[in-house]
Amino acid sequence: MMKSIICDMLGIRYPIFQGGMAWIADAKLAAAVSNAGGLGLISSINFGTEAVREEIRKCRELTDKPFGVNIMLQAPNAAEVADMIIEEGVKVVTTGAGSPSAYMPKWKAAGIKVIPVVASVAYALKMQDCGADALIAEGAESGGHIGDLHTMGLIPQIVDAVKLPVLAAGGIFDGRGAAAAFMLGACGVQVGTRFLIADECHIHENYKERLISASDIGTMVTGKSMGDAVRCLKTPFAKKFFKMEFDPNIPKEEVLKFGTGSMRKAVFDGNLSEGSFLAGEVAGMIKCKQTAKEIVEDIMLGAEKLLANAPSLLK
Amino acid sequence: MMKSIICDMLGIRYPIFQGGMAWIADAKLAAAVSNAGGLGLISSINFGTEAVREEIRKCRELTDKPFGVNIMLQAPNAAEVADMIIEEGVKVVTTGAGSPSAYMPKWKAAGIKVIPVVASVAYALKMQDCGADALIAEGAESGGHIGDLHTMGLIPQIVDAVKLPVLAAGGIFDGRGAAAAFMLGACGVQVGTRFLIADECHIHENYKERLISASDIGTMVTGKSMGDAVRCLKTPFAKKFFKMEFDPNIPKEEVLKFGTGSMRKAVFDGNLSEGSFLAGEVAGMIKCKQTAKEIVEDIMLGAEKLLANAPSLLK
Repeated sequence: MMKSIICDMLGIRYPIFQGGMAWIADAKLAAAVSNAGGLGLISSINFGTEAVREEIRKCRELTDKPFGVNIMLQAPNAAEVADMIIEEGVKVVTTGAGSPSAYMPKWKAAGIKVIPVVASVAYALKMQDCGADALIAEGAESGGHIGDLHTMGLIPQIVDAVKLPVLAAGGIFDGRGAAAAFMLGACGVQVGTRFLIADECHIHENYKERLISASDIGTMVTGKSMGDAVRCLKTPFAKKFFKMEFDPNIPKEEVLKFGTGSMRKAVFDGNLSEGSFLAGEVAGMIKCKQTAKEIVEDIMLGAEKLLANAPSLLK
Repeated sequence: MMKSIICDMLGIRYPIFQGGMAWIADAKLAAAVSNAGGLGLISSINFGTEAVREEIRKCRELTDKPFGVNIMLQAPNAAEVADMIIEEGVKVVTTGAGSPSAYMPKWKAAGIKVIPVVASVAYALKMQDCGADALIAEGAESGGHIGDLHTMGLIPQIVDAVKLPVLAAGGIFDGRGAAAAFMLGACGVQVGTRFLIADECHIHENYKERLISASDIGTMVTGKSMGDAVRCLKTPFAKKFFKMEFDPNIPKEEVLKFGTGSMRKAVFDGNLSEGSFLAGEVAGMIKCKQTAKEIVEDIMLGAEKLLANAPSLLK
């Protein structure tokens, strides 16, 4: 078994978080991950604050283990969700896309552990200053909204800069990636992409099939030129969006309009021509569907074995 | 001490290569790395084939340890260099920017070990088919010319795809990065950026100073829109190049012309307005100058210690 400060802090068995993927991470997936010994996360990007409240309640019915909520702070209902999770007695929050400083006093008063996702040293220091309990340092191998730095270089730089426990995200697929993250100084990992094909994940069948058939070069980054880089599968939509964003004859508003609702079209409709199928660079490693429990155990038992046997690499 | 198939294959003490950086990797740097127990590499991008021959001869005077030559296969004199290294009795070649298949029969006949740099699974398989002895899988965290994938996801995918020994490059700065690379399945590492500030590295003082003062977000990628992505320090030149490549009113030829000779202007003149200072994402971790020996030992002894102690992460 891994020793990890994050397991002690949150009362979980394995130091692995399931990424709080927008429109995807719901009660069923989060509960499955938490029941497997990791930390399941429910996304606040869903059908409104009350829908998220319902997911939290449903999750509590499905598991008696700790789980958390991921809040995208730039979402219009972020302040509402920030209060709602206190009412619902949620104990762990991960945050992205902004600073949680405005909510920090009341979250702290409610005993909530706050774990922001960061992608640079400056932001990690800012989050430490505003009272974060731990950090998720996310490399741009990740699916969805990404920063500029990648996991191999990012994790040691964040670990050296802050005094907080640091989890690694981005490019982690199996025990090898998790063991590598621990060598880089992380105390845990967050995995998103691989959980997309979990049996408990509700995304459209087309989405899962595209993930399973993706090659190593199956993802691309769109939106970087517009200041909002997103990693997704190379679908007809993604290629068209990329072409549009670099076309000087197409106004930015038209590009943004083209992208509106594209995540939902991928997640719920499996629409290959209009959907944005967010996925990380490790999509190429996905070979089959599994349960969340199989995924958690493959990653964590694989890492434990590698770490236990690491001295055999020496003579 | 690390056990590594690459050490046995090449007769080196530590499984670490110094990147064969164009205009930079010369006899003095390569010999220092080889004398420290790694594999030093001389770049074939220099002042012509005869100048490279001189470097090889000089290197042999400076060390009795194995060293190699890195050949950029798209260079106009690649065929000339391919023959010259046989004449000079070089025993290790790393290749980039193309396929070495045309030279493979004569290199093999001369007992040369051929180790191509690859950035995708398809290219790794192609290099295996054409008779490579090992591969360097290079993530796009690296400085200089880069591919699309990053080290955390790239290494396991290459390791799973081929039967050859795989070294990891990209984002590796110290023992943590090297130990992580071994967990990912690599049998060795190649390090470029950190050797730039080696005392034995001849680059202009301005270059070294910019590396030492670089932050975690100190590098950027230029040329990607033109199919030739290069990671370099965020200097006035790099920012201007980036702006030009996305300006629809500037012809591509003008952008290319602006970039011509920029590497030499960085390396030899330290020219911040016209030079391209190639560097990897780990530039932010460089804090001081060191000898090549100090760098090799910090990385390898650091990795050995982490691997030896890895079981202490378990309970």
